[in-house]
Amino acid sequence: MRLAAVADPTGRTTAAVLEDGTWRSLPAPDLSTLLRTTPVAHLARLAGGVVEDATPVLPLPTPTKVVCCGLNYGDHIRETGRELPAHPTLFAKYADTLVGPADDIELPRGVDVDWEAELAVVVGAEIRGGDESQARAAIAGYTVANDISIRDWQYRTLQWFQGKAWDRSTPIGPVLVTPDEVDPAAGSTITCRVDGEEVQRASTRTLVFDAAALVAYISTFTVLRPGDIVLTGTPGGVGVARDPQRFLGDGDVVETQIEGIGLLRNTIRLTDH
Amino acid sequence: MRLAAVADPTGRTTAAVLEDGTWRSLPAPDLSTLLRTTPVAHLARLAGGVVEDATPVLPLPTPTKVVCCGLNYGDHIRETGRELPAHPTLFAKYADTLVGPADDIELPRGVDVDWEAELAVVVGAEIRGGDESQARAAIAGYTVANDISIRDWQYRTLQWFQGKAWDRSTPIGPVLVTPDEVDPAAGSTITCRVDGEEVQRASTRTLVFDAAALVAYISTFTVLRPGDIVLTGTPGGVGVARDPQRFLGDGDVVETQIEGIGLLRNTIRLTDH
Repeated sequence: MRLAAVADPTGRTTAAVLEDGTWRSLPAPDLSTLLRTTPVAHLARLAGGVVEDATPVLPLPTPTKVVCCGLNYGDHIRETGRELPAHPTLFAKYADTLVGPADDIELPRGVDVDWEAELAVVVGAEIRGGDESQARAAIAGYTVANDISIRDWQYRTLQWFQGKAWDRSTPIGPVLVTPDEVDPAAGSTITCRVDGEEVQRASTRTLVFDAAALVAYISTFTVLRPGDIVLTGTPGGVGVARDPQRFLGDGDVVETQIEGIGLLRNTIRLTDH
Repeated sequence: MRLAAVADPTGRTTAAVLEDGTWRSLPAPDLSTLLRTTPVAHLARLAGGVVEDATPVLPLPTPTKVVCCGLNYGDHIRETGRELPAHPTLFAKYADTLVGPADDIELPRGVDVDWEAELAVVVGAEIRGGDESQARAAIAGYTVANDISIRDWQYRTLQWFQGKAWDRSTPIGPVLVTPDEVDPAAGSTITCRVDGEEVQRASTRTLVFDAAALVAYISTFTVLRPGDIVLTGTPGGVGVARDPQRFLGDGDVVETQIEGIGLLRNTIRLTDH
């Protein structure tokens, strides 16, 4: 099943499910609301009328938690000569950080803006203290995100949060794909392109902590609820690690894609205020 | 003005204001809801009936953001020989982390539980991109918190989040005191006691980044809304920095107090699951 929040040409938005190439409405304005009120297994039979000329928008505008993992791609960690980590490196974002799959990303001129293509895991059932099997059962599905990072703020102090939590800087979407249709642990290709040039490519098979492992680990200390999001980390190829370093400029188009899930296309807009 | 969420003997909770030593109800179940719907300046004239035998409970159960500052007491930083920081070290919690001013704090046996007495700033008006003057005007008031930290998890990786975000581990309250009644920048004594023994004592005057500076800085990258909380960091004297290290055990009573604001009294309960 492929789910999204879609806008029609009048700007009205609704949760929707893709059937035979057309979007059919579901009874909620977006997937945050839908997942809080309806188990994923019940969704198919709720499909309503066709939404004509539907455009996917921010699917999950109101998660209670967006927990992010860093340093999680084995191939990239090994190529830097580091040991594989024993525990996931976690930090937090808030719902305000998210932005839609085709939205512009507005940031102030003068900061160091970098890309981080990531697989996003969406929680479908409340889980606390779950093991990996329970975590797997609690996953509603997968979508695409880019953990756009303000590197100079990220490294002002030891804690990354202030470089990671800028409002409307993390694009996510366009569709939530249920686990029966995609299995990132089996290997999906994730890529990032800047103005058409590929800057990241990896397989989600090489995640050190996969989706179920992350959900289980986080649920040890905090409850995860339907609509909450776990970002799984980015592979090698980010701008700050290049020689010379490369950051995003005004007008740059960032495309983030995961095979079998979908594509984000966001333009960076640097403004004077 | 002194505000709280209070429970009556039947367990019903309401927002309330203290007048002449008695709590009078306000039209909301708690201060999160109250601040989202009503400017602080309008509250006094909304006071309703007296709540008999009122007991303060968690005042702010549903903030959208709880942003925390580390390494922020100048006397402690100087005594460790470090330079004063140019930027605040920030990390995030979620609403689920909060617990009431007299609640037990349940954690699993075997983790390293430490105390961190902190001044908490409560936002009263939406602010984004504000300067310090605008930030000062956006502060609803001050309360007391203890950023109880799971040190072994905090230091598993470089990012502190997983040691700071355990559900129901950060007590906060009991009252929100408006800025006309208390000015932490002028100096309020903050103390922490464990089973009656004082383990932390400092003046909020020695904060490197005071309440208005923190709110302004955070508002550079993310909007703060009524009911959001900023924790301002803890002074010296935490257990992990002692020689030998000292952590909290089952049944330990942690008292956290700020002169002119109030007192938290929480018992640590370590459980087998």
